[in-house]
Amino acid sequence: MKKSLMAAGLAAVVTVLVSGAALAQAKPEILVKQRQSAMTLIGKYWGPMAGMMQGKIPYDAAVVQRNAGFLDNLSRMPWDGFHESTRDVKSAALPNVFTDQAKFREAASRLENEASRLVQVSRSGDEAAVKAQLGAVGKSCGGCHNDFRAKQ
Amino acid sequence: MKKSLMAAGLAAVVTVLVSGAALAQAKPEILVKQRQSAMTLIGKYWGPMAGMMQGKIPYDAAVVQRNAGFLDNLSRMPWDGFHESTRDVKSAALPNVFTDQAKFREAASRLENEASRLVQVSRSGDEAAVKAQLGAVGKSCGGCHNDFRAKQ
Repeated sequence: MKKSLMAAGLAAVVTVLVSGAALAQAKPEILVKQRQSAMTLIGKYWGPMAGMMQGKIPYDAAVVQRNAGFLDNLSRMPWDGFHESTRDVKSAALPNVFTDQAKFREAASRLENEASRLVQVSRSGDEAAVKAQLGAVGKSCGGCHNDFRAKQ
Repeated sequence: MKKSLMAAGLAAVVTVLVSGAALAQAKPEILVKQRQSAMTLIGKYWGPMAGMMQGKIPYDAAVVQRNAGFLDNLSRMPWDGFHESTRDVKSAALPNVFTDQAKFREAASRLENEASRLVQVSRSGDEAAVKAQLGAVGKSCGGCHNDFRAKQ
């Protein structure tokens, strides 16, 4: 367990370094716009799935499969936008995004993992299992927003 | 050829109807924000690939593979945001997006198809073939922007 956590941590550091190099020329305002765009689209495709989970709109397995695939991709897009250079750009990001990067990255990874699992579960056609996994995805969104995002 | 074009047209109409129903409650301003977010992220992941194609940055097969996968997903996200209800919302979209929907949808499909092909080609490891396909993707971006987007 400890070993795998360390490996994950190291992978995260490598990812940040590579992204950092690739983004060397991106302006902080652009990085913020890009990460906010990813969040906007996560909201677009998460919204209907949340509605289905809560029974507010009819369950549609095809929509869940499509949206889960999109969410899986989108869940990997915001994080390099939380670059150190964006620390002073106005946004809803709380300062601890930058002062507690390991915890932030861990919370981000949780969404990536739960979204990836949702893709697998959505292929099973098991509605109850899908709804349970939607719950896990929602929890990972909320966990990160509670700790790292200013209350809206 | 004519038959397949008709089939594609019908599929597009069905897609628009389904999307229209699903988006019945989304406000026009939100739809515009969502489609612009998709374009912002397409730019994020297209930029480095364009740079590699033009020899401005070193070719990196792993980055191309990752970005191609993202682009493939993102290329399918903007279109339902060009809903009739957004006609009067200020944006760079030209009026013919709404008056010549068949041609717009065809131009949009071209990006989807070229991006999907890029995913396949990027797995081959053939740098020249990848760069040729990047050219095809770029052409599909430009084709649509020329006809349907106000000059920036």
